[in-house]
Amino acid sequence: MAIVVQKYGGSSVADADKIRNVARRAAAARERGDHVVVVVSAMGETTDRLIELANQVSDHPDDRELDGLLSTGELVSSTLLAMALRSMGAEAISLSGAQAGIRTDAVYSHARILGVKPHRIKKELEQGMIVIVAGFQGITEEMDITTLGRGGSDTTAVALAVSLKAERCELYTDVDGVYTADPRIVPEARRLDEIGYDEMLELASYGAKVIHSRAVELGELHKMPIIVASSFSDKPGTVIHGGALMEVAKKVRGISQDVNVAKVTVVGVPDRTGVASAIFDALARANISIDTIVQNASINRITDLTFTVTKNDLTKAMKVIDPVVKSIGARECTSDSKLASVSIIGAGMQSVPGYAAKMFRALYEAGINIELITTSEIRITCIIDESKAGDAVRVLHRAFELEQGA
Amino acid sequence: MAIVVQKYGGSSVADADKIRNVARRAAAARERGDHVVVVVSAMGETTDRLIELANQVSDHPDDRELDGLLSTGELVSSTLLAMALRSMGAEAISLSGAQAGIRTDAVYSHARILGVKPHRIKKELEQGMIVIVAGFQGITEEMDITTLGRGGSDTTAVALAVSLKAERCELYTDVDGVYTADPRIVPEARRLDEIGYDEMLELASYGAKVIHSRAVELGELHKMPIIVASSFSDKPGTVIHGGALMEVAKKVRGISQDVNVAKVTVVGVPDRTGVASAIFDALARANISIDTIVQNASINRITDLTFTVTKNDLTKAMKVIDPVVKSIGARECTSDSKLASVSIIGAGMQSVPGYAAKMFRALYEAGINIELITTSEIRITCIIDESKAGDAVRVLHRAFELEQGA
Repeated sequence: MAIVVQKYGGSSVADADKIRNVARRAAAARERGDHVVVVVSAMGETTDRLIELANQVSDHPDDRELDGLLSTGELVSSTLLAMALRSMGAEAISLSGAQAGIRTDAVYSHARILGVKPHRIKKELEQGMIVIVAGFQGITEEMDITTLGRGGSDTTAVALAVSLKAERCELYTDVDGVYTADPRIVPEARRLDEIGYDEMLELASYGAKVIHSRAVELGELHKMPIIVASSFSDKPGTVIHGGALMEVAKKVRGISQDVNVAKVTVVGVPDRTGVASAIFDALARANISIDTIVQNASINRITDLTFTVTKNDLTKAMKVIDPVVKSIGARECTSDSKLASVSIIGAGMQSVPGYAAKMFRALYEAGINIELITTSEIRITCIIDESKAGDAVRVLHRAFELEQGA
Repeated sequence: MAIVVQKYGGSSVADADKIRNVARRAAAARERGDHVVVVVSAMGETTDRLIELANQVSDHPDDRELDGLLSTGELVSSTLLAMALRSMGAEAISLSGAQAGIRTDAVYSHARILGVKPHRIKKELEQGMIVIVAGFQGITEEMDITTLGRGGSDTTAVALAVSLKAERCELYTDVDGVYTADPRIVPEARRLDEIGYDEMLELASYGAKVIHSRAVELGELHKMPIIVASSFSDKPGTVIHGGALMEVAKKVRGISQDVNVAKVTVVGVPDRTGVASAIFDALARANISIDTIVQNASINRITDLTFTVTKNDLTKAMKVIDPVVKSIGARECTSDSKLASVSIIGAGMQSVPGYAAKMFRALYEAGINIELITTSEIRITCIIDESKAGDAVRVLHRAFELEQGA
């Protein structure tokens, strides 16, 4: 009997009706003859409500206590789902992250999974149970509860699938798969039947919210096929895998956009050893993530250094580097918070030239100015004016003919 | 350094302000130089809300899953209290029932504590922490979460006090102690400075809701002094203990009433061996608690058998015994659901005659008819008409001069 891991997100278990809907889907999977493990997120807005409560009692809620508090959201949804399954005659049992054997480090609020000891899950599966596991949480060696951070339930599901040697991991959410672009922006966007791990990682890192990068990375590392589909329909969804892709002929697979981009430029930087590290060390100590970094060619040993951060980190970033800018003798520091990124992504691009040129031309013809460019082997990203992001995605979707299947 | 266990009920942690109030009280206790362990109930109406959710997804929520669900209420309040304490500069840590080492049997929804393994609590106390423990819950050998039933947090607190060899166990609630009668019924009711375990047990069993019998029994067994006081004032409260009581001169210590009483009479029962056991076996199998049982003297080997149940159990009890009544050849079965009990309680009564007579006379002079009488060594209970319960308590309070101190 194969093992299948299903994960249902917060919008899929938002109320009693939706929980019963998920119960029916899980029971149907069991009836098809598979061993079924179900990972659930907290109901709807539960996590936000718990965070609000924490902020009411404390200006800076303690990390360990906050994790204990937030973990209750998934305990609630998992026990309710088990009840719903049992009331429709299915054998089911809920397990907390601790009971499911999910061991993590002690980095509260974004713990990493160190390993899974799934003997309890296996025992319950052998007894014919549908096993419901509270997502997003684990336990340290000290038996303290941790949470895995945003996208944590996706990561729980893939980690369980890997440790149980499941046939596949199915992630159910409120969209029915991975699209060539956000359908709210590009009405003719097309659902992809399949996508490679690398492509999905680039899409997820550059704005596609459908699945968290950590879960994709884990799937890639252990070659676990991941299916993204809707809990509200029976459409087949998108398979994320590492095998030969049927659609490689179509070199550009998807377009992502992210409007949470701000740019910082340090002007008149003396071009000498240690200057860049002084700036980025300071930002790293302040826990600010940097995305793109561009340094212009040096003229008279003076250069400009530009990097991007998320918009919410901009004020903090400017404050952190202000003393550094002075100490290294740079001229000044400017910023622009009204930016966005658009990226074209496709594993097939790496071997074929001309994609960058085609992208830049399409944007140019639409009158969209490119502020910065950054690339990986399977991605080209342009930083543009925020107000042009939607236009840019539509223009590129058309230029690369993504509305047509492979 | 002495260890003190404090317990705060649901109304004491009902919102963020009240949680901060509890935090201040716990911090003050720590500053007075004691090691402090705090047990908390779920916030306000949380438990009822969770039960409602369970009923929305299932007609008969599974016991194990329901316990997992309900246990989250105390996890929320305990983590919030730890956050509130830390944000005011106190060292504090929250522990779940499992982390606190509270081991129970696997009788879900009313588990019994088998033992406490408090090494984690001790470790945290030694590091100067105020330790917050989620009340009402424990863990089975299988690592499954159980709840202790109504009054469970009181029981958690006393069990922890016993296993930690605490100096005392303080139960904080929304009333400031144990009264000679319910002050809402008898305005001149007086708060008792102290009361014996036995007296408290009788009061609790016969309607005084201030503390659960299980917690008192546990305190008595291990001679743990229990203090009942208000979390909203600094009044000293009532000490429940087993030492010599200062106030024994006052033989009647308190009057309790319970309006949740219904009576069943089986008329014309053949007086032969096995008849009573046939009736009460059937009720026990249906999990119906019986309180008073009275059997009249047999006339011509025919007798009447009367017993009381709670009002909510009456319909079920009538249904359960209907076939039994027929099979034993009794004439019929009648019931009365409009009854109440009033009890006078006091350890000093047992050695002195005349209390029963005085009680009956007082009720008689007030025109209150007695339906049934039942006694223990330190209690006399009369079953009366429900509408007369308040009058009866007031009449008895005056007759035994309870408004006057010892």
